[in-house]
Amino acid sequence: MNDALHATAALSRGADTSLTEQLALRFSDRIRLRLLAPGARLPSVRECARRHSVSPSTVVAAYDQLQAQGMVEARRQRGFFVRPQALEPGTAESPAAPARTPMPISATTLIRGMFQPPQGQSMPGLGALPIDWLDLPLLAGALRKVARSTSLRACSLEYGEPAGDSRLRRALAARLADHGVSATAQQIVTTIGATHGLDVVTRTLLKSGDSVLVDEPGWSVEYARLAALGMRVLPVPRGDDGPDLAVMQRLIDAQPPQQRPRLYVTVSVLHNPTGASLSLQLAHRVLQLAQKNNLHIVEDDSYAYLAAPHLPRLAALDALERTIYVGGFSKILTPGWRVGFIAAPPDLVDRFIDTKLLGTLTTPALTESALAICLEQGLLRRHAERINAKLDAARARTVKLVLAHDCRFAAPPRGLFGWVDTGVDTERLAQAMLDSGWLLAPGALFHSTHRATTLMRINFASTQDARFWRDFARTRNNM
Amino acid sequence: MNDALHATAALSRGADTSLTEQLALRFSDRIRLRLLAPGARLPSVRECARRHSVSPSTVVAAYDQLQAQGMVEARRQRGFFVRPQALEPGTAESPAAPARTPMPISATTLIRGMFQPPQGQSMPGLGALPIDWLDLPLLAGALRKVARSTSLRACSLEYGEPAGDSRLRRALAARLADHGVSATAQQIVTTIGATHGLDVVTRTLLKSGDSVLVDEPGWSVEYARLAALGMRVLPVPRGDDGPDLAVMQRLIDAQPPQQRPRLYVTVSVLHNPTGASLSLQLAHRVLQLAQKNNLHIVEDDSYAYLAAPHLPRLAALDALERTIYVGGFSKILTPGWRVGFIAAPPDLVDRFIDTKLLGTLTTPALTESALAICLEQGLLRRHAERINAKLDAARARTVKLVLAHDCRFAAPPRGLFGWVDTGVDTERLAQAMLDSGWLLAPGALFHSTHRATTLMRINFASTQDARFWRDFARTRNNM
Repeated sequence: MNDALHATAALSRGADTSLTEQLALRFSDRIRLRLLAPGARLPSVRECARRHSVSPSTVVAAYDQLQAQGMVEARRQRGFFVRPQALEPGTAESPAAPARTPMPISATTLIRGMFQPPQGQSMPGLGALPIDWLDLPLLAGALRKVARSTSLRACSLEYGEPAGDSRLRRALAARLADHGVSATAQQIVTTIGATHGLDVVTRTLLKSGDSVLVDEPGWSVEYARLAALGMRVLPVPRGDDGPDLAVMQRLIDAQPPQQRPRLYVTVSVLHNPTGASLSLQLAHRVLQLAQKNNLHIVEDDSYAYLAAPHLPRLAALDALERTIYVGGFSKILTPGWRVGFIAAPPDLVDRFIDTKLLGTLTTPALTESALAICLEQGLLRRHAERINAKLDAARARTVKLVLAHDCRFAAPPRGLFGWVDTGVDTERLAQAMLDSGWLLAPGALFHSTHRATTLMRINFASTQDARFWRDFARTRNNM
Repeated sequence: MNDALHATAALSRGADTSLTEQLALRFSDRIRLRLLAPGARLPSVRECARRHSVSPSTVVAAYDQLQAQGMVEARRQRGFFVRPQALEPGTAESPAAPARTPMPISATTLIRGMFQPPQGQSMPGLGALPIDWLDLPLLAGALRKVARSTSLRACSLEYGEPAGDSRLRRALAARLADHGVSATAQQIVTTIGATHGLDVVTRTLLKSGDSVLVDEPGWSVEYARLAALGMRVLPVPRGDDGPDLAVMQRLIDAQPPQQRPRLYVTVSVLHNPTGASLSLQLAHRVLQLAQKNNLHIVEDDSYAYLAAPHLPRLAALDALERTIYVGGFSKILTPGWRVGFIAAPPDLVDRFIDTKLLGTLTTPALTESALAICLEQGLLRRHAERINAKLDAARARTVKLVLAHDCRFAAPPRGLFGWVDTGVDTERLAQAMLDSGWLLAPGALFHSTHRATTLMRINFASTQDARFWRDFARTRNNM
C-alpha cells in the first residue's frame, strides 16, 4: 500500500512493467488509498503526459486500462473521473452491501497519508513532531521500570481498572493543575489517545441524528467521526480569539427545539490548523452561552504541552462543570503508545466508563503505567521545555521560508502548525506535489463541506527542506 | 468504588461509622455501581435485617437515609425502590442532560464486576482464566525482546500502521491456518482486544436503527453495545449444534424489506455461556441462509485456543467471503495487553481501517509486536496445551461439585464456562451471594430482554472453592 506514496516523479524506463502499466498502477493505488476520491477528475492527458514525461498515447493507454478495470469512467468532452464504486467492487450488484457510513473522503486521505509518509522525506502536511525530536531513552527507561516492577503482573494478567491505570490517573490529576484544571483521579478516564477520548465522549452524549457544534476550520477527522456516527455537524467560524458566538447562537436558534445541539467540540489552546488560542474574555462568554443553551463542551487539549501553560482553558474556568477535557501525549511524547484521557464532570464519569467498557473493555495498563512515570518525575516537563525551544527556532526559520516563497500567514504563526495562504488552489497543488513525493495538508481538509481554498496547513517542525521549497515553487509556477 | 464489592457479610460493630451509615453506604455504593439497577426493589426490612444481623430499626434508618439522599423512593405497601434518576443527580432539572444511550443496566453491572472482583476470592461469575494459570515469564520475555530491539523506536515514536503492527499481522495470518481460516496479512486489522474488533465491525457495517441477529443466550456486553449504537437486536435461539435457522429465517421475513437485518453476530466455537460449538452441517446451512438473505456474519472466536483446533469455523468454510472473523488473546494469554484483531473479506478491509482510524487512530504497536513473538515461536501453542490440560482437570472437579449441590447442566460441560441450572432465581441468588463476597453471573445477563431464570454461568477454572459451595448451599436454602 505504500507504493503510491513512495512514488517519485519519474516512471522507470526499461523496467519489467511498461510505462503504461506503471502509470495505471500509480493511479489505481491512489484511487484505492483515496488520495484520489470518487468523483475526482484525473489530470488531462496533456498535463499528465507533461508531468510524467511520457507521450500522450501512453497516458491514453493507461487511462483505458483503468477504465477497463472499472476504476475510472470517461465523460464525453470532460475527461476521466474516478468511479464512485471504484473502491467497492461488486457493491452495486450485492444486495447485502451494508450502508456506507457517510464520511468526507478527504479526511481518511489525509489521515492515511499521515501514517504512511513517503520514505525519508520530512512532510509538511504531517501532524506530529519529527521522530528525531522525541526522547526514546526517556520512554525506554519508563518502560523498563514497569517491566521490572511487580506491576507487570497486574498490567499483563488482569483486565485492569475500567477507568484506567490508577497510577496514571493520579499523575494526571496532579499535572492538570499546571493548566489550571482541578480534577481528582476519580474524574479521569484513560483512553487510546485523545482521539478515542473524543470518540467515547461523543458516543456517550450524542445519538445518531443529533447536531453538534464544531470549530471551522478544524480537524477533519473530528468532522468525519461525527458524520460516521450519524451526527449533523454545525460549523462555527473560528477567529483568532475564539469562536464567533453570534454565529453560534444563530445556528442554535435556527434548529427546531428538539434538534438543538447538545454539544460543542473545540480546541482552546493552539487550535488546529490556525494555532490560535482562546482569549480569557471569550472563554468566559463561551461558557455563558453554553449555560444559556444547555450545551456540554468538549475541550480537546492535545497541544497542551506546546503552549505556555497559563493559557485559559474552559475546563479551568468552569471547574469541569459542563466542560469535558480531553488530552493526550501523541504531540509531545509518544504517538505510538496511544495514551490519552478524559477529565469529566463527576456526574458523567460513570457513563464514559460504560461507553469505554462496551467499546474496548479496558485500555492497556502497561503503557499507561509507564507514561505515569514520565509525568511523576518531571521528565515530561523538562522534555517539553526542550521541544518548545526547538520548535521556536524551527518556526522562526520556517516563517522566513514561507514569506520568501510568496506565501502569507492567514493566522499569526504559533505552536506546531502554520495556516498558510499559497495563492493557488491547494488541493490541485497537493495532488501535483504528491508526484514529487511530498504530502501536503490542503485547506479543504479542514472544512466540514468541500470547498476550494488557497490555504494549507504546514508543520513548522518539518517544512524547512530546501528540496521541498524548490519543488513547491516549481509546481506552483506550472499551475 | 471497590467497597461495594469488597464488602463481606458482616457490618463492623464499634467502627467509626454507625451500622446504619455502613448499611446505607453499602446500598448507595451498589446503586452507584449499578449492581442495584434503577427500579430494583431493595430487600424487605425484615430480610435485610436478618441478612446483615442488625435490628429492623437500623435497616429502616438506613433506608430513610438513602431516601433523603434521593437514591431510593418508598412506594406505599410495596417497599423501597432504586430511583430511576439515582445515578444522575440533577438530570431531571438540567435541560442540557444529553440523551442516555439505551443499554441494559445488567450488562455494565456484570462487566464492572468482572474488573473489580472481591479481593482474593476466586469468582464463579468471572469470564477470564485465573491469574496464576497465566504465564508471566513468557509475556515478560517477549516484551523485553521488543524493548531491546530497534523496533522500540518505531513502536514508540511513530503512530504505526493503520492496519496494525505488520509483524503481528503476518504471525496471525500464519496462525489462523491452525483453525482452517486462510487469510493474508493484508486482510488483518488489529484492535484493542476482540471487543474493539466487534465494535469496529458493527460501527462500519450498521447504522443506528438497523437490526442485527444475535445468538441467545449470548454475551450481554455485545447486546449492550449494539443497543448503545441504536441498533435493534434480534435474538436467535442457540441450540447445542448452532442457531435455530427456522427462527432466524422467520425473524428476517418478519421485518419490512428496508429493515431486514444485514448482520448476524455469533460465536461458533465454545459459545458463551453454553460452551456449545457449531456443527459442520449447521455451519454449512448458516452460510446458505446468509447467502440467501445477503447477511454478513461476524464470527467471534475469542475462545479459539480453549477448544480442539479442528472445530468448524464459518470463516474457514466460506473463505472469508461474507464472514468476518474476530479474535483476541484475553482468554488464553493476556487480558491486560488488549490485543485483538479482525480478519476480513478483502473488500471490507479498508472500511474497517477507516473506522479504526476515526475512533483510535492506530493501536499500540508495542504490545502487538510482543504478542507476535509469542505467536511466532510456538510459545502460545505450548502454553495453550498446558492451559487446556489444567482446564480439563478443573472442569472434571467442578462438574462433580455442581452435581453434588443439586444443580444440573443445561448444556454439556465444555470449555471455560458451565451453563448451570440452580433451581432458584439466579438474580436474587446473585444479590444475596454478593453479601458473602461472591460475584455470580446470573442467567438474566445472557438475554437480550430481562427475564427471570434459574440458570447461571460458572467459570470452570474458578468455581471449586469449598467456601463458595458452602455459602451457595446456605443462601439457596434461605431463599
